[in-house]
Amino acid sequence: MPSYDYEKDPAAIYRQSFSIVRSEAELSHLPDGLKPVAVRLIHACGMTDLPQDLAWSEDILSAAQDAFARAAPVFCDVEMVVHGVIRSRLPTDCDVVCTLNDPAVPTLAKELGTTRSAAAVELWRDRLEGAIVAVGNAPTALFHLLEMIAAGGPKPALVLGFPVGFVGAAESKEALISNPFKVPFLAVRGRRGGSAMAAAAVNALAAGLPEET
Amino acid sequence: MPSYDYEKDPAAIYRQSFSIVRSEAELSHLPDGLKPVAVRLIHACGMTDLPQDLAWSEDILSAAQDAFARAAPVFCDVEMVVHGVIRSRLPTDCDVVCTLNDPAVPTLAKELGTTRSAAAVELWRDRLEGAIVAVGNAPTALFHLLEMIAAGGPKPALVLGFPVGFVGAAESKEALISNPFKVPFLAVRGRRGGSAMAAAAVNALAAGLPEET
Repeated sequence: MPSYDYEKDPAAIYRQSFSIVRSEAELSHLPDGLKPVAVRLIHACGMTDLPQDLAWSEDILSAAQDAFARAAPVFCDVEMVVHGVIRSRLPTDCDVVCTLNDPAVPTLAKELGTTRSAAAVELWRDRLEGAIVAVGNAPTALFHLLEMIAAGGPKPALVLGFPVGFVGAAESKEALISNPFKVPFLAVRGRRGGSAMAAAAVNALAAGLPEET
Repeated sequence: MPSYDYEKDPAAIYRQSFSIVRSEAELSHLPDGLKPVAVRLIHACGMTDLPQDLAWSEDILSAAQDAFARAAPVFCDVEMVVHGVIRSRLPTDCDVVCTLNDPAVPTLAKELGTTRSAAAVELWRDRLEGAIVAVGNAPTALFHLLEMIAAGGPKPALVLGFPVGFVGAAESKEALISNPFKVPFLAVRGRRGGSAMAAAAVNALAAGLPEET
């Protein structure tokens, strides 16, 4: 029978992980405040070359600090992002919300002629002004959000753009990066992304890195 | 104001995505039955080079077919995997279970001197024989599972190994790949992995690709 030798101490695992990331990743082009966020994103995906694809607005850190201090709600496009957010790191009265499975969504999607993910964004309207948005899956959710803002709708405090995949993902993130509405953002360019990165961005912006705070 | 031009039809998005993946990815080294699984995994992470890191046992497809036909439970290491599994694609009476947030886990982790993720695997014991296991985050969960099997514990029908990161992830998956217990497996070698891939593996093995079944 084999025997397995591996690290079982959670604090040591975090420490070693972040140490490996720091020794391998090129972070020098990032503002100091974004370096721990990048480390956390790399930790979530296992890829040290991720920072080369990061894009951000200069006001992203102050926008996040202000929004979390206000206990602004966090709107997520999919339940996977909700379940990747570490509640204990957020202000206690901060809601983390996904409306994708709201019973109104399928009908709304048909009416609007779009995806369920995009229709679900419509249900954020009442609390979207000043909110935190984390998109970890659906390009159509990010595009729809930008369309709502372009039409004069409520403006979130910041948008974390991590749609993943081959149809619209890169394009939706470029649209966010070049948004003329001055919405603060952090995004990963290209096809990579996903719920784990979106949740990691929320966790890191809310409270930095575990074992270091 | 910008205007956004993007695909809003879910079926067309799937179709175009899978078409891009097929045109770019090298799949020829995979058994035919695993090709749609690989396409789904690539779709989940946006990386067409993923198949070069896939490892599998020859019996993985038959094991999965049999387990889903029995409506075997699906044990997941984290809630993110649970929420990535598309319930409508599984047999209706198939449970998808994560025990990580069970109130017994923190104490058990201290008693066992291991992580919460590993301790949570202990709570699978009663229904683990013949079950489907999907690990999308924690190397310690996968190691602990292999230790339980090595000690004569219940044997799952198959293990989908997608721990991600820098400490133990690659090693835990190599331990799965070289497991002497003849547990059928599918895994991605190296640091890459994650909940989205683990859930995609479950979805694809349960029911192939959407828009093609």
